[in-house]
Amino acid sequence: MKVALAGIGKIALDQHVPSIAASPDWELACTVSRSGRVDGVEAFADLPAMLEARPDVPVVSLCMPPVPRYAYAEAALLAGRHVMLEKPPGATLAEVHALQTLAAARGLTLFATWHSRMAKGVPGAKAWLADKTITRAHITWREDVRKWHPGQDWVFEPGGMGVFDPGINALSILTEILPRPVHLTGAELEFPENRQTPIAARLQFTGAVSADFDWRQEGPQTWDIDIETDAGPLALRHGGNLLLIDGEPVEGGPEAEYPALYARMTELVSAGRSEVDLAPMVHVADAMTLGRRIVTDPFDF
Amino acid sequence: MKVALAGIGKIALDQHVPSIAASPDWELACTVSRSGRVDGVEAFADLPAMLEARPDVPVVSLCMPPVPRYAYAEAALLAGRHVMLEKPPGATLAEVHALQTLAAARGLTLFATWHSRMAKGVPGAKAWLADKTITRAHITWREDVRKWHPGQDWVFEPGGMGVFDPGINALSILTEILPRPVHLTGAELEFPENRQTPIAARLQFTGAVSADFDWRQEGPQTWDIDIETDAGPLALRHGGNLLLIDGEPVEGGPEAEYPALYARMTELVSAGRSEVDLAPMVHVADAMTLGRRIVTDPFDF
Repeated sequence: MKVALAGIGKIALDQHVPSIAASPDWELACTVSRSGRVDGVEAFADLPAMLEARPDVPVVSLCMPPVPRYAYAEAALLAGRHVMLEKPPGATLAEVHALQTLAAARGLTLFATWHSRMAKGVPGAKAWLADKTITRAHITWREDVRKWHPGQDWVFEPGGMGVFDPGINALSILTEILPRPVHLTGAELEFPENRQTPIAARLQFTGAVSADFDWRQEGPQTWDIDIETDAGPLALRHGGNLLLIDGEPVEGGPEAEYPALYARMTELVSAGRSEVDLAPMVHVADAMTLGRRIVTDPFDF
Repeated sequence: MKVALAGIGKIALDQHVPSIAASPDWELACTVSRSGRVDGVEAFADLPAMLEARPDVPVVSLCMPPVPRYAYAEAALLAGRHVMLEKPPGATLAEVHALQTLAAARGLTLFATWHSRMAKGVPGAKAWLADKTITRAHITWREDVRKWHPGQDWVFEPGGMGVFDPGINALSILTEILPRPVHLTGAELEFPENRQTPIAARLQFTGAVSADFDWRQEGPQTWDIDIETDAGPLALRHGGNLLLIDGEPVEGGPEAEYPALYARMTELVSAGRSEVDLAPMVHVADAMTLGRRIVTDPFDF
């Protein structure tokens, strides 16, 4: 299946391009980007030109930041293309609802991807927790924004999500593996005094579930989820890629995250279905609404 | 039908108590409140005591602020009671989703009320706009927080909504009368330097729809919506209670807002249905997520 990749930045080059190249099902037909490009692949500077020139490309995969993404998604759906959205699926919940309505009306596939849900340990964690009683759960998600978003000021602009850009990955795992939904009861959000989005967040949910997100961690990076149950502890390490039950590693699936997303997109398009679960994004919107704001030191790249 | 009213503050006494008293369908069986009470009506200090003592009361109407409301709603549903929620229906979107799931599982009615949708001019506005092309819409919602929430510091605490407490009334009308949904594209939020929620907000939506919310307006209060269409202008004044089409007043319904809410609850319980439309709350969560934060003068009551 031919795919056009729009928004050729770090995530597109690091993950999408190699995943498409490695898949027997997919062919990178062209790119759309103001500045980025992929060697040997037809490049368009804007989406309307691509949609006009390449009616043979049925799928558009969108990797630009959330704020500009809606306009691309809408244009692609209106041109009859199936659409894959990087996480988070939009800058607002209402715009994703609008895309869902549009895709359904046109009979097109809309896939709001959550790459961390495809991490190797996640399916095993979900299956094991299904019949357990969870007594406590804690997320520790601490990374270095300078390493993962070097110079990307948009992450600190309105709609750029701040520390929820990585944190939503943890929430996408949490909402996948918990047998029952939780909801936020309180949050503290640390805003650098010169920035519009939080650089750290501490979240408290029902059911003794909590999260600690921080974007200022230098050295080793931490992407851990620890869950206590009536049958012993479960832990996910390395962003969901290592599952430990009672401290023992459990063998995970063979697939990596982004190849699994493209495999899932193949299934969805073939089945004529969409997959849009906004639960992780709802928790972020709830945190931004309910969170207590704390002003902290200025941050500069 | 007997109803227990929980959270006896200004809105309960100003609106709910007289609406229940005036209705032939409803009887105020008891109240639940730490401090407030209604003369001649049995008063409980906490909900578990009421649920235990009054199994004959099938409906609980919740008027306390949004943050504590979830615990009351969950307890009432678990005790087999139908539930009415004042606006906004919760402090988070996820908690309202949880209540929807619980009510559905128990076969109970959950009614997330939006009193402004019951304003006299709203049904006529919705009907007239249904086949029009809207070229522009603007909301002006400016009132004096000292008059409507005297000394209520909770409105400026996390989850208290700030100026969105009245603004969501305007958004509940907007989402009711527009023939197609819109979504937020940008917002400016003014936070008093000593407060956690905005005192003013300017919102921009798709389709040339905008809103101006301000809680610092002394003197005459303004709750206006102006819509330009291919068939001339439509205006709502007085919070939706006066409809003008092409400048001419249009006769509205006879009912006032809160009596209409209780009449609607009678219908929903009789039909065994729920009504929970979160669109206004989604727009607020989107504004809190996407909005640019501007720090402004401190505010004190």
